[in-house]
Amino acid sequence: MATVFIHATVTLDGFMADAEGGVDWMFDIPTVPEDEEVVKKVMTNIGAVVGGANKTATVEDGEEPYGGALQVPVYLMTHEEREPVERKGTTYTFVVDDIARAVEMAKEAAGDRWVSLLGGSISRQCLQLGLVDEIHLDVVPLLLGDGISLFAGLGQRVDLKRVETPGFAGEAHLRYRVLR
Amino acid sequence: MATVFIHATVTLDGFMADAEGGVDWMFDIPTVPEDEEVVKKVMTNIGAVVGGANKTATVEDGEEPYGGALQVPVYLMTHEEREPVERKGTTYTFVVDDIARAVEMAKEAAGDRWVSLLGGSISRQCLQLGLVDEIHLDVVPLLLGDGISLFAGLGQRVDLKRVETPGFAGEAHLRYRVLR
Repeated sequence: MATVFIHATVTLDGFMADAEGGVDWMFDIPTVPEDEEVVKKVMTNIGAVVGGANKTATVEDGEEPYGGALQVPVYLMTHEEREPVERKGTTYTFVVDDIARAVEMAKEAAGDRWVSLLGGSISRQCLQLGLVDEIHLDVVPLLLGDGISLFAGLGQRVDLKRVETPGFAGEAHLRYRVLR
Repeated sequence: MATVFIHATVTLDGFMADAEGGVDWMFDIPTVPEDEEVVKKVMTNIGAVVGGANKTATVEDGEEPYGGALQVPVYLMTHEEREPVERKGTTYTFVVDDIARAVEMAKEAAGDRWVSLLGGSISRQCLQLGLVDEIHLDVVPLLLGDGISLFAGLGQRVDLKRVETPGFAGEAHLRYRVLR
């Protein structure tokens, strides 16, 4: 059965983007080959992606999850029925409001591979629904001071088990299992 | 010259305490001897402590920084003049409103050892004033969902360099240098 995991790059103060949604700061931070290796290893395991409703605009802008590096099915939450979109070999399926169903569809599509949850709102909702198996954070060495938080608003306690947290010259990579 | 550092135990979502200031969750988390070693090594380096005005009540309650394990001068912010208090071999000096002065006094007292900043407000203010050399976080494997945040409200970007981030069965220990 597919492992469902939250996958995010965050600052040390837990922001995925600045208050306007910008992530320019991400590209200011030098990474080292070991950082790229960790990310690449995770990415090869991914068999499907679930993104929040705010990612729908991203599709229309021609942006793709993981910069288009993954050719896997993408499930996006939406508030209105929409036909699937196919672009550059990737199928985007829209799921109206029912996150548990989107995750279930993604798990079926992923098979033995992993389902990546992208975005703060979808991640927090899946945590609240008990749908998350693991959390993988790539922590960049920076305090952003303000912005769009990965976990703010979660509103409930979730116990974790540290799996591995390698740190290289650039980033710290924190991997946790959710205890249920 | 003394190194000034933020020293905090936080959850993976960045909280030092729950919304009521409670830290009971901290004692639910099993640590391993390696975790204790990291904390002990840091503690032996500390030569003085600076705490926020909210720590003043703590002193009156008979609570001490680090549970009384350190016998070093403690400087606490206050809004009104107060005489120093001596208890169990520790001198508590109260500094009215001027955080930079409190840090300066603590650095003089610490000599070549380190000055520990305790608490969110004092930590953020010292970051804003450019007074912080390092940040040491002991990250417990837990999302608290809500509470008193270490960094929320910082409001400005601070660039960091990862120094070391060992992780053991219990905690991840994140140590960063502040770049200026």
